[in-house]
Amino acid sequence: MKIAILLYDGITSLDAIGPYEVFSATAKCEVKFVAKKKGLIKLDSNMGYLHADYCFSEVTSADILVVPGCSPPNYKSPMNDEDTLNWIRKIHKTTKWTTSVCTGSLILSTVGLLNGVEATCHWGFYDLLRSLGTIPSENRVVRSGKIVTAAGVSSGIDMALQLVAWEFGEDISKSAQLILEYDPIPPFDSGSPKKAPAPMVEKIRGLMQELAKQEPEN
Amino acid sequence: MKIAILLYDGITSLDAIGPYEVFSATAKCEVKFVAKKKGLIKLDSNMGYLHADYCFSEVTSADILVVPGCSPPNYKSPMNDEDTLNWIRKIHKTTKWTTSVCTGSLILSTVGLLNGVEATCHWGFYDLLRSLGTIPSENRVVRSGKIVTAAGVSSGIDMALQLVAWEFGEDISKSAQLILEYDPIPPFDSGSPKKAPAPMVEKIRGLMQELAKQEPEN
Repeated sequence: MKIAILLYDGITSLDAIGPYEVFSATAKCEVKFVAKKKGLIKLDSNMGYLHADYCFSEVTSADILVVPGCSPPNYKSPMNDEDTLNWIRKIHKTTKWTTSVCTGSLILSTVGLLNGVEATCHWGFYDLLRSLGTIPSENRVVRSGKIVTAAGVSSGIDMALQLVAWEFGEDISKSAQLILEYDPIPPFDSGSPKKAPAPMVEKIRGLMQELAKQEPEN
Repeated sequence: MKIAILLYDGITSLDAIGPYEVFSATAKCEVKFVAKKKGLIKLDSNMGYLHADYCFSEVTSADILVVPGCSPPNYKSPMNDEDTLNWIRKIHKTTKWTTSVCTGSLILSTVGLLNGVEATCHWGFYDLLRSLGTIPSENRVVRSGKIVTAAGVSSGIDMALQLVAWEFGEDISKSAQLILEYDPIPPFDSGSPKKAPAPMVEKIRGLMQELAKQEPEN
């Protein structure tokens, strides 16, 4: 099974690496990291890089396309890059599953793939997703036809395990989970806006929305 | 706070990126990806790369050192590279916390930092850890003095959230968890050998132990 993971400057690393690691653990997937240009891809933190081994012209189809998110989802995002949007459109025609993690669904919505349908994204950006014509869902993984969207950052792991279950069956998904020892025991139960303290949620939502409004640096 | 994450060919990507993403979300950490030589670092899957922005001579101290694991933990591992073991020894003298994810604890044990103390690693390699003189623990995150070891692959996220709580307090850890929307809902409950079907556990354990015995390719 061929997996294409889109990379671009400003990407959130775990959005891409979470699904990659799950697919890799199945030993049944060929994963390609793809960007407009091959080479180093700057992370949203400015503290490191991923690497695109393939450029758009080298990857013309995929069984699963993964569109990761970025922080903030503004000028740095492929939402504003026509070449990237066109590549996503082209690959989408060939996929069994077109997927996103975090603010990646804002990109899919910009492409026009989520008009009037339910999808999810990072909880801080439901309004932005709605403004693009998509119905925000608070679920962690949302399927609308062959499009599957995941919530913020770490949710790509859960999404990929679900995709693996659909494609290869329950046992392969369970095996991948076991190989990654994905038996989460976070020290606190604060991973969703429904569980974290309300003032914390509002503060972070505010910060994220401010960041998303920033002007392009170029 | 200065974080150094060791990279090396054969590394398991999520072992490094999980903690990185947590530290990054605090906005209080400077994370450096460090390897023997700067440049591209081949992943264990042979399907992609991470990137070392710094070489050993450029990073001489750290508040937190993270030693990720690799699959399989054999010839590809820094366990067999004296320069890497020496760099870990040197950095360890400067750290507040020296940490590992997955088979990274086999490396810390080889360095001599875990003689006769409790530590954890990927569940498939407890015997190997014991053979190095360390007492394997089945806990997800294990603290022995200033050394903190985490279980397989995805457990580095939980470990980093715990370290953040110790260093910066509960609220910063909860905020990081919320930013990463780390509210796991895997489709199955199969992420530990205690929860997965026993035949699956034995099959994967066998495969891993076979891989670990393979001769160097070189």
